[in-house]
Amino acid sequence: MSLNYAKRMSNIRASEIRELLKLTQKPDIISFAGGLPAPESFPIEEFIKVTREVLENSGTKALQYGPTEGFQPLREAITKRMAKVKVDVKPENILVTSGSQQGLDFAAKVFINPGDYIVCESPTYLGAINAFKAYEPRFLEVPTDEDGMIMEELENVLKNNENVKFIYVIPDFQNPSGKTWSVERRKKLVELANKYNVAIFEDNPYGELRFEGEILPAVKHFDTEGRVAFLGTFSKILCPGLRLGWIAAEPEFLNKFIMLKQGADLQSSTISQMEIAKFLELYDIEKHIQKIIDLYKARRDLMMKTMEEEFPEGVSYTYPEGGLFTWVILPEYMNARELAVKALEQKVAYVPGGSFFPNGGNENTFRLNYSNMNEEKIVEGIKRLGKVIKDAMK
Amino acid sequence: MSLNYAKRMSNIRASEIRELLKLTQKPDIISFAGGLPAPESFPIEEFIKVTREVLENSGTKALQYGPTEGFQPLREAITKRMAKVKVDVKPENILVTSGSQQGLDFAAKVFINPGDYIVCESPTYLGAINAFKAYEPRFLEVPTDEDGMIMEELENVLKNNENVKFIYVIPDFQNPSGKTWSVERRKKLVELANKYNVAIFEDNPYGELRFEGEILPAVKHFDTEGRVAFLGTFSKILCPGLRLGWIAAEPEFLNKFIMLKQGADLQSSTISQMEIAKFLELYDIEKHIQKIIDLYKARRDLMMKTMEEEFPEGVSYTYPEGGLFTWVILPEYMNARELAVKALEQKVAYVPGGSFFPNGGNENTFRLNYSNMNEEKIVEGIKRLGKVIKDAMK
Repeated sequence: MSLNYAKRMSNIRASEIRELLKLTQKPDIISFAGGLPAPESFPIEEFIKVTREVLENSGTKALQYGPTEGFQPLREAITKRMAKVKVDVKPENILVTSGSQQGLDFAAKVFINPGDYIVCESPTYLGAINAFKAYEPRFLEVPTDEDGMIMEELENVLKNNENVKFIYVIPDFQNPSGKTWSVERRKKLVELANKYNVAIFEDNPYGELRFEGEILPAVKHFDTEGRVAFLGTFSKILCPGLRLGWIAAEPEFLNKFIMLKQGADLQSSTISQMEIAKFLELYDIEKHIQKIIDLYKARRDLMMKTMEEEFPEGVSYTYPEGGLFTWVILPEYMNARELAVKALEQKVAYVPGGSFFPNGGNENTFRLNYSNMNEEKIVEGIKRLGKVIKDAMK
Repeated sequence: MSLNYAKRMSNIRASEIRELLKLTQKPDIISFAGGLPAPESFPIEEFIKVTREVLENSGTKALQYGPTEGFQPLREAITKRMAKVKVDVKPENILVTSGSQQGLDFAAKVFINPGDYIVCESPTYLGAINAFKAYEPRFLEVPTDEDGMIMEELENVLKNNENVKFIYVIPDFQNPSGKTWSVERRKKLVELANKYNVAIFEDNPYGELRFEGEILPAVKHFDTEGRVAFLGTFSKILCPGLRLGWIAAEPEFLNKFIMLKQGADLQSSTISQMEIAKFLELYDIEKHIQKIIDLYKARRDLMMKTMEEEFPEGVSYTYPEGGLFTWVILPEYMNARELAVKALEQKVAYVPGGSFFPNGGNENTFRLNYSNMNEEKIVEGIKRLGKVIKDAMK
């Protein structure tokens, strides 16, 4: 028997990353591969209390169907998070999603006919590439420097290609590169999107996890025509296990996502939405986020320091001002995919960078996560990795 | 500004049903419109205990990311539910989804190129039609009688159309018609799917809510070639607020859904999966389901009895042996959409039947739900509805 699947399925393959991540779950592996938050930061005691209150006071509501748009008090609470990145929105601008990953799926579902173009940073988030691929787009990668996407290059791309539908960006502590866009670039991005009539999806899972300096205004802050959709999530500031995120957009634009959500899964979990709303009511999430920042900053510092000591000359890496990742560039003749096998033999894992380039290449790069391993493992893991790199250089 | 959306978006409109359902949420409305379970059946006390145990014993795991396929103990528990409908599967055959609605979205996503055909019962589930439409299919409706889809008609449809990708069926207490397929038809369906090499999606949200007689073997029970995907859900046997369902299929087939799930939302809620697994471990769900059955059976009996007394001659309706719905057919000259406005003036709501026919027509039908209103409201609502129908007949 061979079933006759849709064309899109030939675009979607079991990711080798996923297979790699399965290996890295063995307890003796020091894994810098995933993007997992530190479990010791999860507010378990608070959730026990919050869950009890929700079920005791509103049990029948919590276990019943709810509106597709989301639980109203949670939509209201999300507008306060948006104020932190200087975006002024009302609850009607918010759709609660099943993680911001669902927002990525909807982005392509709303815009992409087979063959249409998506513009993205080079490199860009692997999970976004995979979500988009189900809708058969083509990708245009725009190079970045230390201030984010290079605007002259972006304008060239927009000028020279028909059917560009949207620009996908992660302006804060980008996954995988760890880079942050300057305010100037954010403004300019909106100007170019206006000029060439394309939408912008701004993915911001880590923006509040800033270790130094001020939180920057979101790209959405500069949105003059309602063409920016902002994707947020509770995964990195609270916990990922509840699978809750949001899309913030102007009502007419948002309405497209609401209609898709209705067909895709009706609504996100009622009880989880009520639990997070209750958490935000009873506890000081800013204090909680500060604890996460302190933890991750110490880990970033340690990873940076150890890389400086252990990585050989010719290897460069990003100094991230926040978020979960740093990005390593090896000499061009090296191959990080082959090196990953040798690293795994030494019980250390990372994600080879080539997978973050939708059009391929750049196999001399890899991504390191510093949020999930404790201090001791960071030092030991980077030492081993340094040795693996040095050995491969000989 | 006018953004350039994908072609599929012109297929997707804000459902008038959704607007109707918003009206019906006013407290003074007697609503037979939605498909809501009875909230008084929700096991709130049990969930308070279950949630506490999960968070106290496995808090960090519950709040962290988990595997796309689902929480292993829950996948194991689901195989036991499948045994109830005589389907013998292993945990590897199960993908946990965000409600069975997500399985419907994946069905079309896996198979449909624009213009491909989906074969369905006439009428069929409105939520499935909406999910499928995002992938630009055409629909072929097959008439049903008291034993389910008419197999001669199905064979005609399969013989005379190219690019039929799958047959979508709800064999038990169908939504909206309340009908149940005979065992013979289930077998024959698989034979025809084998002969014409199409897949089958069997949607079974209510199968365990049988008021009389024996639970019938699922269509998947007769699957000889691995072409049947079974969609299940905890929404009707436990509660819908957690948004958890599943797809059961052969590994190669299931793998397509796992890859789509990875892009769509990474995974369903870890904590909710652990809570349901813990519920199934600590409590007797069969006893719980029996309580739901007793409640809904009494309501079905009362609705049937009241319809018999209050509905005028010329109006016919299904006697459902289980599930949540009955289906009313008015004389052909009547229009249930227009009548719905008059019913709403009398503070009674139902869903006009025309929306359940993907190719339109059949405006003399409507769907009634009996699970969500209490006994008093059922009697009062059916009385009012009977009067509205009689008045419109004059």
